[in-house]
Amino acid sequence: MDNELEQLRQQLDGVNMDLLKLINQRAEIVQQIGAVKEKQGINRFDPVRERDMLTELTQQNEGPFENSTIEYLFKEIFKASLELQHDDHRKALLV
Amino acid sequence: MDNELEQLRQQLDGVNMDLLKLINQRAEIVQQIGAVKEKQGINRFDPVRERDMLTELTQQNEGPFENSTIEYLFKEIFKASLELQHDDHRKALLV
Repeated sequence: MDNELEQLRQQLDGVNMDLLKLINQRAEIVQQIGAVKEKQGINRFDPVRERDMLTELTQQNEGPFENSTIEYLFKEIFKASLELQHDDHRKALLV
Repeated sequence: MDNELEQLRQQLDGVNMDLLKLINQRAEIVQQIGAVKEKQGINRFDPVRERDMLTELTQQNEGPFENSTIEYLFKEIFKASLELQHDDHRKALLV
């Protein structure tokens, strides 16, 4: 393994860990939003808000990923977060 | 819209933008790795390295996302990055 490749891989590992922290931090915020909405009796899934977030993300996207890829990846993150909220809701019902 | 929800949404928007930057930064590093491997004639897809990254990520995962969700989301990010490398390779062939 040469040095250039090794250095790039270390950079990648660092970014992976930052991404991991941010993805989980995002999930925590979504859980808090879910709890507030639950108290207020508002539906947790808000397609308009989700569309707005995707629009903002693709507007700010400078690549190298295409907008379509950014949309796809964030939709997957949104979906996973929503599933997490459903789990919380189910747990709350079971308590 | 009450204040608590508005504040949480602003936090979420901030995290979205940080995630966007990091995901693209990760893609740039993967492109650089692809270029180095291309020069050296090494295959760009390395399943062992990918498995190692996923193991490291799930070991460091503190939630709230489950390890299975972290694996799933990162596999999607890896896949998108690999597709980006293929696009680069195709473009290089077309030049």
